[in-house]
Amino acid sequence: MATLMEDDVFRAFTTYAAIVIVKMVLMGPLTAYYRITRGSFANLEDVARKSADEQKKLLRTHPDVERVRRCHLNDLENIVPFLGIALLYTLTGPDLSCALLHFRVFAGSRIFHTISYVGALPQPCRGLSYLTGATVTLSMAYRVLSTVLVL
Amino acid sequence: MATLMEDDVFRAFTTYAAIVIVKMVLMGPLTAYYRITRGSFANLEDVARKSADEQKKLLRTHPDVERVRRCHLNDLENIVPFLGIALLYTLTGPDLSCALLHFRVFAGSRIFHTISYVGALPQPCRGLSYLTGATVTLSMAYRVLSTVLVL
Amino acid sequence: MATLMEDDVFRAFTTYAAIVIVKMVLMGPLTAYYRITRGSFANLEDVARKSADEQKKLLRTHPDVERVRRCHLNDLENIVPFLGIALLYTLTGPDLSCALLHFRVFAGSRIFHTISYVGALPQPCRGLSYLTGATVTLSMAYRVLSTVLVL
Repeated sequence: MATLMEDDVFRAFTTYAAIVIVKMVLMGPLTAYYRITRGSFANLEDVARKSADEQKKLLRTHPDVERVRRCHLNDLENIVPFLGIALLYTLTGPDLSCALLHFRVFAGSRIFHTISYVGALPQPCRGLSYLTGATVTLSMAYRVLSTVLVL
Repeated sequence: MATLMEDDVFRAFTTYAAIVIVKMVLMGPLTAYYRITRGSFANLEDVARKSADEQKKLLRTHPDVERVRRCHLNDLENIVPFLGIALLYTLTGPDLSCALLHFRVFAGSRIFHTISYVGALPQPCRGLSYLTGATVTLSMAYRVLSTVLVL
Repeated sequence: MATLMEDDVFRAFTTYAAIVIVKMVLMGPLTAYYRITRGSFANLEDVARKSADEQKKLLRTHPDVERVRRCHLNDLENIVPFLGIALLYTLTGPDLSCALLHFRVFAGSRIFHTISYVGALPQPCRGLSYLTGATVTLSMAYRVLSTVLVL
């Protein structure tokens, strides 16, 4: 058990995996913040204490809330595959410097992606940060499949 | 290989991970059940045998179906980060009692979350069960990052 | 570290996990392709260079884009649980032939699912490929829980 955590590459993977997971989990409270400040809820029980008139107003979608939700979904679509591939990539025994490069670029690109998306920065900020992250994932997948292939 | 499964904490992780994954997978059939009983479909090919008139009626959203879908998405947003962090947390070699506490509270909170969401229980049932789960994940992430940090 | 990758079942898991992850990641570019060809965007900054009139036309949903997005979400809902359970299943030390059967059927069913969904093939193509994948996941979860159970 302890042998995995004695490996430098695995420790680097652990660090960056934890960072991007925490970033992804924090999108939940961010959505709640936007829902409350923008007055946009999805469930009747969330506005149960209000009058019927106010309930109608609050049970609607708001562009800012939808934006955060799309950003959260994009995180799921990109960070989760990264976690899977990065674990397998780590177990193929890559160089520490090469692994760190992959992990750092990915974590940086996803943090910048969230800033671009939630802040509505002009394109191609969001597009490029998405592409950078996906490229890192595919680069690691290439390494995994070219090292280990048992069909 | 076998050495991982000889570790008590890893066996506990395996058990609870399997339980919450099975819970998450069963949201699929639950969505199908609501789609069929509520008559609410998203794809034209799903209602191909009906008359054009009936098709229009069936190709709509229904509040109950949307509720189950939101619950499923919330599972993805919370159970998947838990799986990643809990695996890393397990590999840092925590006490069995401390690990079991984390895993049990998380599994319980997510099962109660599903009941609260699908059953539309009054708040703060859903809010508190969500917060409990997210707190467990962040608590494990804290332990992982404070034990292993290779930036 | 290297000991995991010396195991035949783990190498098979690595191969098929990488394949289904790459398939899932490629849904991103496919969505972008449909968004551009169908002229259907979700964010104002994506159409910033167009005139106000054109912007209104481009900021709408399109059935083909929504179809690809539902397919992507279904991938997340099914491939991610598979990755988690298949890793744990692999660590319980199953026969290579039995593990390969699970992995091959799952990978095949998900590739066929994407073809059925994006190509809008008549039912029960999509329904059966979804059920096949979910059955494989539940079969592995049964093996995991019956081998390792520490509540």
